[in-house]
Amino acid sequence: MLRRMMMFKSSIRTSVLRGAIDALLAVVDEARFNLKPDGVSVRAVDAANVAMVNLELSNSAFDTYSVDKDITIGLDLTKFLDLLKMGNPDSECEMVLQDSSRLKIKMGSLNYHISLLEPSTIKREPKVPEIELPGEVILKGADFRQGIKAAEAIGDYLVIGIETKPQEVFFMEAEGDVDKVRLELSRDDLFSISVVGEEYVRSMFSIEYLKEMGRVIAGADEVKLRIGNDFPIDISFRLGEGHVRYLLAPRIEAD
Amino acid sequence: MLRRMMMFKSSIRTSVLRGAIDALLAVVDEARFNLKPDGVSVRAVDAANVAMVNLELSNSAFDTYSVDKDITIGLDLTKFLDLLKMGNPDSECEMVLQDSSRLKIKMGSLNYHISLLEPSTIKREPKVPEIELPGEVILKGADFRQGIKAAEAIGDYLVIGIETKPQEVFFMEAEGDVDKVRLELSRDDLFSISVVGEEYVRSMFSIEYLKEMGRVIAGADEVKLRIGNDFPIDISFRLGEGHVRYLLAPRIEAD
Amino acid sequence: MLRRMMMFKSSIRTSVLRGAIDALLAVVDEARFNLKPDGVSVRAVDAANVAMVNLELSNSAFDTYSVDKDITIGLDLTKFLDLLKMGNPDSECEMVLQDSSRLKIKMGSLNYHISLLEPSTIKREPKVPEIELPGEVILKGADFRQGIKAAEAIGDYLVIGIETKPQEVFFMEAEGDVDKVRLELSRDDLFSISVVGEEYVRSMFSIEYLKEMGRVIAGADEVKLRIGNDFPIDISFRLGEGHVRYLLAPRIEAD
Repeated sequence: MLRRMMMFKSSIRTSVLRGAIDALLAVVDEARFNLKPDGVSVRAVDAANVAMVNLELSNSAFDTYSVDKDITIGLDLTKFLDLLKMGNPDSECEMVLQDSSRLKIKMGSLNYHISLLEPSTIKREPKVPEIELPGEVILKGADFRQGIKAAEAIGDYLVIGIETKPQEVFFMEAEGDVDKVRLELSRDDLFSISVVGEEYVRSMFSIEYLKEMGRVIAGADEVKLRIGNDFPIDISFRLGEGHVRYLLAPRIEAD
Repeated sequence: MLRRMMMFKSSIRTSVLRGAIDALLAVVDEARFNLKPDGVSVRAVDAANVAMVNLELSNSAFDTYSVDKDITIGLDLTKFLDLLKMGNPDSECEMVLQDSSRLKIKMGSLNYHISLLEPSTIKREPKVPEIELPGEVILKGADFRQGIKAAEAIGDYLVIGIETKPQEVFFMEAEGDVDKVRLELSRDDLFSISVVGEEYVRSMFSIEYLKEMGRVIAGADEVKLRIGNDFPIDISFRLGEGHVRYLLAPRIEAD
Repeated sequence: MLRRMMMFKSSIRTSVLRGAIDALLAVVDEARFNLKPDGVSVRAVDAANVAMVNLELSNSAFDTYSVDKDITIGLDLTKFLDLLKMGNPDSECEMVLQDSSRLKIKMGSLNYHISLLEPSTIKREPKVPEIELPGEVILKGADFRQGIKAAEAIGDYLVIGIETKPQEVFFMEAEGDVDKVRLELSRDDLFSISVVGEEYVRSMFSIEYLKEMGRVIAGADEVKLRIGNDFPIDISFRLGEGHVRYLLAPRIEAD
């Protein structure tokens, strides 16, 4: 009798997995998943090279987790999320990978066999740029979301920054042809705020990308932003048992 | 003074009537209603002769019910349901038929007079085929619905069946070009399961029809399925005070 | 140091302001707001001169209210409502007008600067016609809404009236090509009903306008209707701390 290799076998609460896939979908539609003994990680960049997402789900986020060796699989995220939505969010989602082209998913009495994408057909993993960002703010995910939504009605770009004079404030600001909106949070409204060696930091971003990210971030109790002057913004937060990080390139402000 | 004949007069909880009309709408848009002393019945088949629905609302489902003689009236179901949605679901819906072309409907302070369809213009009532179906399963309506929804993302057809080896299981299975889903329920997940004289039964159905039926069936605590090999499926359940039966013709599986 | 003039400064609960703007939007998309020491008032008529709205928000509806002199400003109502929806409905909405072209709005940590419309570009304020209306009914806003919704499925016009024989009833009636609906409320279902010097009053109105108004009126505990024979209907109600009045011109009934 042939012994079938279990390359990867795990179980996790369906809602946790849903949240993780949703976080990736803010940036990409398909992604390579690295399955390693210490957990699952994904790093992906969008087609325009403007936004990067990094997801870490350590093996402790899973109820059971075993992997033979390091494996990389490719997933169509939209399809995968659609399937996960069929299961009860509180149910256990069991996944078994027997070969690198097919994944078995079991949620309650529901069994899926889905074909995987060949990883080589998916956009290569980006290098994470090493950047020094002098400003750092920790705020509620819901507040960050509010700043994005308020700006949507006004324009296409959002400036995010910190001012230190007369006092430290975090702001999100959008300007249209005639209207302007500014969300301003001072130390009392924030978990923390700091800028190292600058009087202010500010960078401008496309709302299109932030909108998708904001939807996910709204579910996080705390989100940490690292901000520079005309530099990418580094957004990181815990999501259930996982850790998500977005890097978004700035648009250069015209004078 | 002329004594006006009351051909038909009844009252019923609005929500019960809504549910019944909704059940018919899964198969047809207009239907002949047979009003008889023992209750109301409808039997209709869709334009393609693929799906049949049979609805029985016995006079005990009504709070008051009186009919002079056997009457058949024709109703535009979409319009009728729209009107019923205007009333409070918990209100009493009173119906009075004074001639065969107009129905008076009263829900609370709301009074409708709607014109009826001439029954002869509506597709003729089908004969109920006499079929022997060796497999029978009773399961939760919500479980049946889950199997249909899970399959929608995968393909256009759904195989429904019972296997007896190694043990009795009820399954719903859909296969797309590359992906596959199977809902499998064993004796413990079911109210009952049995197959007479066969090792297995399985028939394939169009998801398009099942989708509409599933929406209705989801509201039933128990649904009874009778299944054969490449035979119609017989789906029956109680809905409020009524009884609904769907018969759906199979699609023949290509090898 | 230059002293900046505060032409208008006020604060009000965001939800109250939202409701008021929404009430105006049932008739017009932009409007002139008259800011006076005793409060804010708006009077506007739609492009077809069929519907008029009058809104009064007395200074007591505001938590703080100060105005230097009588000012008229123009607002794009759709845009304004979109912004108000960004704030927490229970938050305080602070408004400051420093010149006649820009309004500052602050809700919590959110600050908007929006450009105003030049009042002269907005359709002139209508004169309120002086009309004697013999019928008067006070009913629940939700009941009035139900009558409108029930009629939507039947036709484009709605007759609203009072009959006194055999007893006083208020009715809303719509007739399509073949179907008919009538909402009828007698004294027990109403707060009050009266007709002076007529056996009945009835006028016919376009459902298109009533639909929008009904959405707003549904939120009012009591709505007062004044009705004549082929005369405008006068609809007035309190909305939060404000007072709204709609006048809607009749359609003449063809025989």
